[in-house]
Amino acid sequence: MDFALQPLTQPGQRFAALAERHAADFATRAAEHDRDGSFPFENIAALQQSGAMAACVAEELGGLGVRSVHDYMLGMSRLGRGDGSTAIAANMHIFRPWRMTRLWEAAKAAGDVAYAAGLERRLRRIGAGQLLMCACVSEAGTDILHPQLEATTADGGWLLNGRKIFATMSPAAQLLDISFHFMDAQGVERLAMASIPHDSPGLEIKNNWDALGMRGSGSHDVAFTNCFLPDAALLDLGVWGEWSEPYLTGNLIIAMGLAGVFLGIAEAARDLTVEAVKTRRKGPSGRTLAERYPIQHLIAEIEIDLAASRAILGRTAMAADTLFSQHPAEGIPLCELHELMKDLQCAKWFVNRKAIDIVDRALTASGGAGYLSSHPLSRLYRDVRAGPFMQPFSPNEAFEYIGKVTLGLDPKLEA
Amino acid sequence: MDFALQPLTQPGQRFAALAERHAADFATRAAEHDRDGSFPFENIAALQQSGAMAACVAEELGGLGVRSVHDYMLGMSRLGRGDGSTAIAANMHIFRPWRMTRLWEAAKAAGDVAYAAGLERRLRRIGAGQLLMCACVSEAGTDILHPQLEATTADGGWLLNGRKIFATMSPAAQLLDISFHFMDAQGVERLAMASIPHDSPGLEIKNNWDALGMRGSGSHDVAFTNCFLPDAALLDLGVWGEWSEPYLTGNLIIAMGLAGVFLGIAEAARDLTVEAVKTRRKGPSGRTLAERYPIQHLIAEIEIDLAASRAILGRTAMAADTLFSQHPAEGIPLCELHELMKDLQCAKWFVNRKAIDIVDRALTASGGAGYLSSHPLSRLYRDVRAGPFMQPFSPNEAFEYIGKVTLGLDPKLEA
Amino acid sequence: MDFALQPLTQPGQRFAALAERHAADFATRAAEHDRDGSFPFENIAALQQSGAMAACVAEELGGLGVRSVHDYMLGMSRLGRGDGSTAIAANMHIFRPWRMTRLWEAAKAAGDVAYAAGLERRLRRIGAGQLLMCACVSEAGTDILHPQLEATTADGGWLLNGRKIFATMSPAAQLLDISFHFMDAQGVERLAMASIPHDSPGLEIKNNWDALGMRGSGSHDVAFTNCFLPDAALLDLGVWGEWSEPYLTGNLIIAMGLAGVFLGIAEAARDLTVEAVKTRRKGPSGRTLAERYPIQHLIAEIEIDLAASRAILGRTAMAADTLFSQHPAEGIPLCELHELMKDLQCAKWFVNRKAIDIVDRALTASGGAGYLSSHPLSRLYRDVRAGPFMQPFSPNEAFEYIGKVTLGLDPKLEA
Amino acid sequence: MDFALQPLTQPGQRFAALAERHAADFATRAAEHDRDGSFPFENIAALQQSGAMAACVAEELGGLGVRSVHDYMLGMSRLGRGDGSTAIAANMHIFRPWRMTRLWEAAKAAGDVAYAAGLERRLRRIGAGQLLMCACVSEAGTDILHPQLEATTADGGWLLNGRKIFATMSPAAQLLDISFHFMDAQGVERLAMASIPHDSPGLEIKNNWDALGMRGSGSHDVAFTNCFLPDAALLDLGVWGEWSEPYLTGNLIIAMGLAGVFLGIAEAARDLTVEAVKTRRKGPSGRTLAERYPIQHLIAEIEIDLAASRAILGRTAMAADTLFSQHPAEGIPLCELHELMKDLQCAKWFVNRKAIDIVDRALTASGGAGYLSSHPLSRLYRDVRAGPFMQPFSPNEAFEYIGKVTLGLDPKLEA
Repeated sequence: MDFALQPLTQPGQRFAALAERHAADFATRAAEHDRDGSFPFENIAALQQSGAMAACVAEELGGLGVRSVHDYMLGMSRLGRGDGSTAIAANMHIFRPWRMTRLWEAAKAAGDVAYAAGLERRLRRIGAGQLLMCACVSEAGTDILHPQLEATTADGGWLLNGRKIFATMSPAAQLLDISFHFMDAQGVERLAMASIPHDSPGLEIKNNWDALGMRGSGSHDVAFTNCFLPDAALLDLGVWGEWSEPYLTGNLIIAMGLAGVFLGIAEAARDLTVEAVKTRRKGPSGRTLAERYPIQHLIAEIEIDLAASRAILGRTAMAADTLFSQHPAEGIPLCELHELMKDLQCAKWFVNRKAIDIVDRALTASGGAGYLSSHPLSRLYRDVRAGPFMQPFSPNEAFEYIGKVTLGLDPKLEA
Repeated sequence: MDFALQPLTQPGQRFAALAERHAADFATRAAEHDRDGSFPFENIAALQQSGAMAACVAEELGGLGVRSVHDYMLGMSRLGRGDGSTAIAANMHIFRPWRMTRLWEAAKAAGDVAYAAGLERRLRRIGAGQLLMCACVSEAGTDILHPQLEATTADGGWLLNGRKIFATMSPAAQLLDISFHFMDAQGVERLAMASIPHDSPGLEIKNNWDALGMRGSGSHDVAFTNCFLPDAALLDLGVWGEWSEPYLTGNLIIAMGLAGVFLGIAEAARDLTVEAVKTRRKGPSGRTLAERYPIQHLIAEIEIDLAASRAILGRTAMAADTLFSQHPAEGIPLCELHELMKDLQCAKWFVNRKAIDIVDRALTASGGAGYLSSHPLSRLYRDVRAGPFMQPFSPNEAFEYIGKVTLGLDPKLEA
Repeated sequence: MDFALQPLTQPGQRFAALAERHAADFATRAAEHDRDGSFPFENIAALQQSGAMAACVAEELGGLGVRSVHDYMLGMSRLGRGDGSTAIAANMHIFRPWRMTRLWEAAKAAGDVAYAAGLERRLRRIGAGQLLMCACVSEAGTDILHPQLEATTADGGWLLNGRKIFATMSPAAQLLDISFHFMDAQGVERLAMASIPHDSPGLEIKNNWDALGMRGSGSHDVAFTNCFLPDAALLDLGVWGEWSEPYLTGNLIIAMGLAGVFLGIAEAARDLTVEAVKTRRKGPSGRTLAERYPIQHLIAEIEIDLAASRAILGRTAMAADTLFSQHPAEGIPLCELHELMKDLQCAKWFVNRKAIDIVDRALTASGGAGYLSSHPLSRLYRDVRAGPFMQPFSPNEAFEYIGKVTLGLDPKLEA
Repeated sequence: MDFALQPLTQPGQRFAALAERHAADFATRAAEHDRDGSFPFENIAALQQSGAMAACVAEELGGLGVRSVHDYMLGMSRLGRGDGSTAIAANMHIFRPWRMTRLWEAAKAAGDVAYAAGLERRLRRIGAGQLLMCACVSEAGTDILHPQLEATTADGGWLLNGRKIFATMSPAAQLLDISFHFMDAQGVERLAMASIPHDSPGLEIKNNWDALGMRGSGSHDVAFTNCFLPDAALLDLGVWGEWSEPYLTGNLIIAMGLAGVFLGIAEAARDLTVEAVKTRRKGPSGRTLAERYPIQHLIAEIEIDLAASRAILGRTAMAADTLFSQHPAEGIPLCELHELMKDLQCAKWFVNRKAIDIVDRALTASGGAGYLSSHPLSRLYRDVRAGPFMQPFSPNEAFEYIGKVTLGLDPKLEA
């Protein structure tokens, strides 16, 4: 009868339990990393050691075997309850094996032995806690369909030049998944991705993340200066500026986990507020805050928003599970993926906005206490505001995208 | 991949399909009943004939066999898409067999043959389309735990005096379920209910419903003047002003269906708006409204609110299914029922408010067209505003109730 | 110390006092006209008799002499407290002499005797209660800069063909101010206005107004079929689709009065609610609603919104007074008029939206009582929703306009 | 035609001009003080040197002579545009001479030479830049009518024991105005205030302010341990827990200035956003953000909220000017002061909430740029959230207070 989201699968239960344990631990150090803007290497190490970082790796390859998008999102929400920075950093890695596993299973089913073997090797390394990855897709002054990072031809491959921002998790990742564009033989600009080792010559992590919140997330800039990329590493995703199935799918999964993290932040704010008002007393009557009607009203508003947030995100994640289970291999019609992405953008916008509202109301309920740096709400207030900026659509873009998909128009945004 | 709620059971599918067919039919007469304030007797008859009125009667007793609260609510939402007045009227009857079937099953399991037989007889009559019921619990100037309708002792029974309001469905019901209070032998005021025939002497349906919206719902006053009630008909529900399991359960189910109806109204407003803006053109460019960003923005806001409304209501109904399946017979701890009622009040408030917002945005998107009496939105705007007034808690009460249950306080409202 | 808006000038005080007296009277018949959709001819006659219809005519010409835009708006808000339909109808006439008086004074100052004399004659007729006017600028499927009503050349003048909608006050007006377009000798489409007698051949008032609210406002369609317009009557306002000083000014004034009316509706809803909750009692304790915190909370929300609405509208009207007093004759830079119109659109959107919110909260505070047709709130709920549709910008357009003016862009909307 | 608030008096113009100059200067150091949590002593010194700190001291006593509450509030809003921390700190001092001047003028008029002379001496010191004051009224766990700081009798005076919080400006003030309670000879608990030198034995400023925002405001705790207060310094304000004219007036003035500061923060956020979107370009089209509809929509929302905020606060401040000018000396009926305080609480809640919304939308418009520590919005986001906590009523209390005053009930909050 608990209205909190619950895992739907056994692997999901294990991931959620692990995540809750980690969250309790990370919460004890969150204030420190927040103050110092330090990357929580020890948290990442703990997540690797426990197997949480391999949540979406198949059990036979050493992981927890989470295949449900719902349960992956749920685990991320549990992690988010403890330390948002660690959770969004970890998400940059955790979502990757979900996608790789799907490709691996499809390759096996299709008899594509070589491709399957390559994926399996990498998944085993993740399962064994030997490999960390992250995704770098954001750039200043452009949207994610139009990366400015450019690959130009070089002997045996390509040279990358440009700059990524918000490369969350970059301090710990061994492989960075980057998006960029290149011109093909026909003179067409194309969108591509590649996994590139963090220590590649010409790749520099700028260690310059200093922000309002999510201060421990290591969301540094990454600069590329004639950074060499071998031919085989370039994954062509189609025409620059156009959505493709892999790119849309990858963005869907990563966004699902991120939305989960912000739900977790809202849950943390709600829980600590409910506990606090039960015992804090005020005024000459000595009544607890909980006994006062204005506080009951605030708590009810929080409860409504949280219930709706859990419901919309849980339901969207289950819709993802349905779609992906109907299509075990690639080949999902793009319009169906856009339909799901539209639902997810509704859920993302709603959860991010309501999480901000919940933390705001929690602050109100705290009197002035939550405004002090020593109070966890003063961190949540800053962390939670990062939510709307998360890829692939900021609010400015999300309304246009949702509207266009709903109305059956071309979902591309105005250039 | 449709984000609309879908039935979870086979009987639910049948009910939903019937409800959709009826809704399409009722929509053709909704404007007329709305204008005239006439009760849609022919709609009620059609619902009886098709078996929809017996949705929650077991198949073996002649019904559709819907046991899932989710699917009952879903069917009501489908009905709500066509004509809100008919839907809330029908709900007053449809919810009853759900409750009676639960008691009937428990009685059979417990070997209480006589009680089971009585319930079965009545359910068979409903299954055969021979009996219509409605619930009358509202009164002016008091809340539902403190009915002022009074039963005083009389020879072989009781005399009822007082007045009910908002007796939706009263024009067609043969039996009215009424709440009242009486003083027991110990001088304690007690809360009771009874099913009373509509043609009992001293019971007068005032045929005075004339309201802003839901004009076809027949929500008349019912006056009781020395109306006789035999002893056996009085169902004692405990101390006046206190919640009991049967009263809380009954209110839960009825409220679930009502919330569904208002979701249906929101869905209708959304659908007709999306269709309209795709074809309506405006201005010298001749572009459709859909091609204009301000309209895309409005549609996105509608889409977000609708997705969240569907999610929270669907999830709450599934939580009800879980609770009731864990407890096949009475004996659910009151605190668990309050927890569920709290979730439902969150969902009810949210769905009612967002339905109002959705209709409001639909009006905005319509330009001025929706303001004309000939446009269905001008009816939806009035019908949808009834939602927050629905029992058991108006918004003024709901916040207090939700806050108190969440904070672990006594859920009774300030007297 | 009253936070309600107060007149700033002596004529304004007289107008406000008259308007309050009329409002009290009109309120007694508002329900009847609302039910029947009948035009309140007797109200219009009373306004003529008292001199209120000549509020903006100079005293020497028989009027009240209101020159302050603030006080004209204030008087309209007072009128709106009694009957919204009558108030918006009256506004269609009352705003006209404000504009004509300004032109008359400028003509006198400039020594343009003939023009001044013509205006004076008409103003005297209005001052004597012998002339009623109204404005018809709305059409379906286009915005107010692009009227489709077309004038084509004819012998000695023009033939008008097309259709206006929302011609509020048309049942009583002797002269209708209409907007249309025509092609000039150079083949350029131009925007024009003309005052045309209501009984012109080819002009047909369709008597078809039947809407959700404002049912007594007589906002009929007006059809033009080869309706003759003499050459001298055509007032060329410049290129079709472009703003000009007279058109922008006229729209400003009319919109100011209309916003006032909706403020008045909100004030009426607030006042009747505050009075009602002070005396209505509920529940076993017999406490008044006012003594309950949830009601205090609702009342506070109403009070905040009303205070902000009064303040923004009052301040905007004072800004208009400042601008027009700085420029006693035409020649206000268009950018300054747009700046003022932007402020007015902020105020209009805000006041209309908050008036809707206030009526909504008043309904909530009423329990279910306000939902009954016999309760004035059930009319206010419908009347108040007309506000956002009022010219010159619906919400869909207002955001774009406000944004563009603020950002220093061309204020024309996307075609 | 500028919709920004403008001074109504000559002294107000001088104060506003000074404040704008200071704000431009302070803005250059705001980020540094924010980062370090350092008190801006140099800003306070500059304000003293320029005469801004003596804004409300009569010109003949060396001040700027601001008597208008509106213009005092306006000056504070201008100061708030540059650095919120400095502005709220300065406000703790600047409001004081307004009140003292009023008492001084009344004393002179009443012929109370001795009292007038005492006030004049202190005002001259402030006018000469030799004296800084601050107010300490907040305590943890109680409201401002029930201070727990206690004075117990001692030889020739009183001993103070207890602790104040949020003693903004305490690092620079030479005199601290404190509230406390004491028991009188009849055993009645009474509310009192006193001005106490910052270097009094037993008074310790804890230098412990470390908060989410307003980090340069020096809002430290102040602890009192057997701190001696001479008899003559105790100003009896009546029964503990009851409002009195001086206490209500003092709280009114201080709150007016504080609300002004938060308006200034909103204005700063709006201005920098409007400028930024005009030049920032995004996406392959190279269009500026300003040219994109979603941004125009955001800007319009900001513009509406800002217009309403300016209007409600300006109007409330003018209402204060009216009331105080009607009553040049003490003796304002308490109910009139409560009426004004109610209007101010409406304005305060509105301005604080809308300032938060404006900064939030400014962040949205910034893309992710505003989330970086190097961007001024990342400071405004934290500073602006302090607004609702400002005395005398937090939101939880304000709704109850506004509701009760509006409904004609005793304005005291539930104990």
